[in-house]
Amino acid sequence: MPPTVKLSNVALHLSPRDEVAIALAPLAAGTIIALGDGAAHLVLTGDIPRSHKFALAQIPLGGRVHKYGQSIGLATAPIAAGDHVHSHNLGMDDAGRRHEFGTGRTTLVAPAGPVPTFLGYPRADGRVGTRNYVGILTSVNCSATAANLIAEAFRGAALDEFENVDGVMALTHQSGCGLVPTSDGAQALMRTLRGYAAHPNFGGMLVVGLGCEMVPVDALVAGHDLPADTVVSTMNIQGEGGVRATVKEGVARIRSMLPQLNERRRVATPVSELVLGLNCGGSDGFSGITANPALGIASDRLVSYGGTSVLAETPEVFGAEHLLTSRAVAPEVGQKLLDRLDWWQDYAAQGGGSLDNNPSPGNKAGGLTTILEKSLGAVAKAGQADLTAVYEYAEKITDRGLVFMDTPGYDPVSVTGIIAGGATVVVFTTGRGSVFGAKPTPSIKVATNSDTYNRMPDDMDLNAGRIVDGTATLAEVGTEIFEMIIRVASGEQTVSEELGVGQEEFVPWQFGTVT
Amino acid sequence: MPPTVKLSNVALHLSPRDEVAIALAPLAAGTIIALGDGAAHLVLTGDIPRSHKFALAQIPLGGRVHKYGQSIGLATAPIAAGDHVHSHNLGMDDAGRRHEFGTGRTTLVAPAGPVPTFLGYPRADGRVGTRNYVGILTSVNCSATAANLIAEAFRGAALDEFENVDGVMALTHQSGCGLVPTSDGAQALMRTLRGYAAHPNFGGMLVVGLGCEMVPVDALVAGHDLPADTVVSTMNIQGEGGVRATVKEGVARIRSMLPQLNERRRVATPVSELVLGLNCGGSDGFSGITANPALGIASDRLVSYGGTSVLAETPEVFGAEHLLTSRAVAPEVGQKLLDRLDWWQDYAAQGGGSLDNNPSPGNKAGGLTTILEKSLGAVAKAGQADLTAVYEYAEKITDRGLVFMDTPGYDPVSVTGIIAGGATVVVFTTGRGSVFGAKPTPSIKVATNSDTYNRMPDDMDLNAGRIVDGTATLAEVGTEIFEMIIRVASGEQTVSEELGVGQEEFVPWQFGTVT
Ligand SMILES: [Ca+2]
Ligand SMILES: [Ca+2]
Ligand SMILES: [Ca+2]
Ligand SMILES: [Ca+2]
Ligand SMILES: [Ca+2]
Repeated sequence: MPPTVKLSNVALHLSPRDEVAIALAPLAAGTIIALGDGAAHLVLTGDIPRSHKFALAQIPLGGRVHKYGQSIGLATAPIAAGDHVHSHNLGMDDAGRRHEFGTGRTTLVAPAGPVPTFLGYPRADGRVGTRNYVGILTSVNCSATAANLIAEAFRGAALDEFENVDGVMALTHQSGCGLVPTSDGAQALMRTLRGYAAHPNFGGMLVVGLGCEMVPVDALVAGHDLPADTVVSTMNIQGEGGVRATVKEGVARIRSMLPQLNERRRVATPVSELVLGLNCGGSDGFSGITANPALGIASDRLVSYGGTSVLAETPEVFGAEHLLTSRAVAPEVGQKLLDRLDWWQDYAAQGGGSLDNNPSPGNKAGGLTTILEKSLGAVAKAGQADLTAVYEYAEKITDRGLVFMDTPGYDPVSVTGIIAGGATVVVFTTGRGSVFGAKPTPSIKVATNSDTYNRMPDDMDLNAGRIVDGTATLAEVGTEIFEMIIRVASGEQTVSEELGVGQEEFVPWQFGTVT
Repeated sequence: MPPTVKLSNVALHLSPRDEVAIALAPLAAGTIIALGDGAAHLVLTGDIPRSHKFALAQIPLGGRVHKYGQSIGLATAPIAAGDHVHSHNLGMDDAGRRHEFGTGRTTLVAPAGPVPTFLGYPRADGRVGTRNYVGILTSVNCSATAANLIAEAFRGAALDEFENVDGVMALTHQSGCGLVPTSDGAQALMRTLRGYAAHPNFGGMLVVGLGCEMVPVDALVAGHDLPADTVVSTMNIQGEGGVRATVKEGVARIRSMLPQLNERRRVATPVSELVLGLNCGGSDGFSGITANPALGIASDRLVSYGGTSVLAETPEVFGAEHLLTSRAVAPEVGQKLLDRLDWWQDYAAQGGGSLDNNPSPGNKAGGLTTILEKSLGAVAKAGQADLTAVYEYAEKITDRGLVFMDTPGYDPVSVTGIIAGGATVVVFTTGRGSVFGAKPTPSIKVATNSDTYNRMPDDMDLNAGRIVDGTATLAEVGTEIFEMIIRVASGEQTVSEELGVGQEEFVPWQFGTVT
C-alpha cells in the first residue's frame, strides 16, 4: 500500500472554495492524500500529470467546478474525489460567464501599521517618478539614427559626474508618417508619444524630428500637460542642416540640462503614489498557479494602500471578462471593458483569426481544460481588487485602484501602452524565459518555475517557482514581490537595467493603414 | 517693352510633345519668350509662379494637355499660348486613363560601346553583392537588444584587420509575435526576414531569437535558398541561458566568420547584374521635374544594358497606373498591378482614407493641377522602360528590366521591401531633405532643389536642383546618377554610410492584426 502524503506537499489548493487541487509533481494512481488536518483522506483514481487537476470532493454531473474560487466549467460526467479533472469530464460554463456589473466587489483591507513608503522623485504635476532619465523622443522613424547617436554620447563615463541622472535614452520607433492623422492608429501613436513625453521618470526631454513628418515635434510636448519641471527642447533635422549638425546640437542641449537634473533628489513617498503595470509573456502551465497569483497578492496590497495597479492584455482576458465586470465599481466601467472586447473580436476577425481560442494542445497538455481556466490564470495577476476604470491604449491613467488598459498581449506593445499611461514600475511574469525590459520604467521579471529561473539567472529578478517546489507559499512570494516593488521603485536596479535591456522595447502599437 | 528671353533659360520643356513648359523662376506677365531657334515668340498673358505651367501653343476647349509626353488632363476652357495653365483651365482626363496592356511599349537601345562594369562580390547563387556585411537577424523584438549589443562589439577598431568586411549590422524590428502565422501580415514579415537573410550584400548571417516566438530562427534560413557561400549561424536566448551569454556567444561566432569573409574580393561585373531600387521621400514641387526624371534616365540606361530597376510605392502611382499597364510586357503583368491597386483602395478605405487623393493645397501651390500630373511625377523615376513583372512586398526579384514591387510609400517600409527583394543599390530623391539610409544596400540621395542641397550638404549625394538653376540639363544629371550608381556599387561610400545611417531604417511592413 502506498504511503499517505499531505495535500499541501503534493498539490496547490488555490482557494478554499475550489473542488480541485493542482498536482505539483506527477502523482500515481492509488496515492493516498491526507486533507486538511489529516483526518480525511482521498485516493487518486488515476495518474495525475504535473500541473493537472484532481477532485478533492465528489462533483455531480452538471456541477460547477471552481479554481481560484471561480467557476472554470461544469462537470460533463459525475466526478468522484480523487478523479483526474480534465477535458473528459469538464466542459464550458456559459451561465457562469454572465456579465454582471458590480456584483462581485471586494473591500481590500490594508495591513495594520503605517503605509509603506518608497524613495521617489516628486514632480511638478503631483506624480512621482521612480527614475530620473533624459528621453530623446522621435516623431518619426527618420530621426531614429540621430536620436541613437545623441544617446550614445552619454554612455560610459559621460554621466559619471551626474550621479542622480539614470541615463539618456532614445525613444525610437518605426512609424510616424504615411498615416491618416485622424485615424485610430495615428491617434494611438500620438497618445503614446505624448504619454512618454509627460512621464514622471523623465526629468528632461529632447524631441527630435525630421521636419516634414505627420506631427510636428512641438505638437508632442506643447499643451499636453507635461510636468512643469520637465526640461523640454525640440529640434528638426531639416532645420539644423542635417544629421551631423543635429547630433552635435542635440548633445549640447542635453549637456546643458544635466546639471539641473542632477540636483533632483529622491524623497520618502507613500506607496499610494506608485502606478504598477502588470504583464506576462512566454507563459507556461505554471504562470496561472505561481507567479500570476503571487503578483495578484502584491497588486492587492498596493491597492489596499491606495495605490494604482494596471491590468492589460485584452486578448488574454477574453473568457474571464465576467470576473472583471462583476468587480467594476460602476456599470459604465464594466460596459467599457465589454465594448473593448467587442472591438477586439472584430479586429481579430479582420486578421483571419479569432479571440475565442480554446486552450491550445500545449495548454491542454499543461493541464488547462477550458478558456475560462486559461484566462483566469492571466487575470490572477490582478488579484481581487475592484475595477475602478478602463482606459484606451496609452491613455493617461488618472484613477486609483485596479484599472484596466486595452492593449494587445504582445509584450513590448502592451507595456509601452501602460508606461505611456504613467506606470512607474512594472512586474512581468514569464514561464519560458522572457528577457524583457522597459526603460524608463524598471521592470521586475518573475519566473513561474525554477527550471527557467536557474537556466537564465542573469535575466530573472525573482523565482515564483518555489511555490511548486514547496519551498515558499503563494503568500510569501506575494510579499516578496511587494517588497521588491518598493526597493526597485526606490532605485534598486532590476536585472534588465543592469544588462542595458529596455530601449528597444519602446514599441507603440501599430494598427491601421500605412500608405 | 520687356526683353526677350529664351525658353530654355526660364522654363523646362520636358518632352517635345508637351503643350506646356514649367517656369524655373517667377515670370512676369508680358514677358516675351523665344521658342526653339528663336524665330517664334510668345508673350505671357499673366504672372507665372515658379514651377507652374504655361502654354506654348493654343489648346482648344476639351483639348488634351501633355507633360512628360503624357496626358495630364483636358482643357476646361480655351487656352492661348502664354496662358497660365492650372486648375482654372485644366481638369481630369478619364478617357486618357483607360487601362490598356502593352500598347505603349518601348525598345530601349543601349549606348554604343561595351557594357559598363562595376566591382561587385559574386555570390554562389549567381547574384552579385555591392557590400560585404555580416547581418544579425532577429526573429522577434525580444532579441533586439542582444543583437544590438553583439553588433556594438564590432564598432570602432574591431574590424580594422578585416578591411574587406563592411560592417556588422543588427536587423532589429518591432514585431515577430502576436500574429496569426498564416495571415498576410505575418507572411510579409517572413518574406522580409528571409529576403534579408539571403541578400547578396551579407557574407555572414547570425540569426538570434528568444526561443518561444512565432517563427523559430532556423525557419528563417533553412531551405530558403540562401547563397551557399553565406556563413550562417543561429541561436536562441533561452537556449543560451540569457542575454549576457547570448551576446558573448554571438560575438564569438561572428569573430569566427570574419577571416573567411575578409578573403572575399570585388570583381569587375557587367552592370546588367545590378538591381536598382527607386524611391522618393519628402517630395516637393521640383521632384517631378528634376530628380525623378533624371533618375528615370539613369534607370532606362541600366535597363538598356540588361539590368534590373525596381519601382515601388503603390499609393504614389495611383492615377498614373495606366502608363505602367500600357508598358506591361504581358496582360498578366498589367493585371497584377491593377489587382494590387484594388487591394490598396480597400486597405485605404479600412483606414478611413482614400487613395484617390487630389493634389493637396501644397501640391497646388507648387503648380500640380491634377492627380495625373502628381503621379506622373512619381512614375517619372522609372523612365520609359517596359514593365516586365509585378511583385508582392518583399518577394524575391527574379525578372530583369523594369519591375514593380507593391509597397507603401512610407520610405523605410518601401525600401525594406525592395531590399528584401534583392536590390543592391538604391537611389532616393528628396525635396524637403530626407536623411535616409538603407544598410546593407547603399542608398544615393538626390536633392530635387539647390536650397535643400546647400542646406544639408552632409546628407545629400547629388544635386538635381541644377536642372532648374539652369546649370545642368536633365540628361547630364541622369548620366551623373548612372555613373554614381556604378561608383557606389563598386564600393564608394554614400553620405548616409559615412554618417552611419541605415540600420534603423530596416522596417518590415506591419499590417494585419496583432494580439
Ligand atoms: Ca528603437
Ligand atoms: Ca504580454
Ligand atoms: Ca532597429
Ligand atoms: Ca517613399
Ligand atoms: Ca535600435
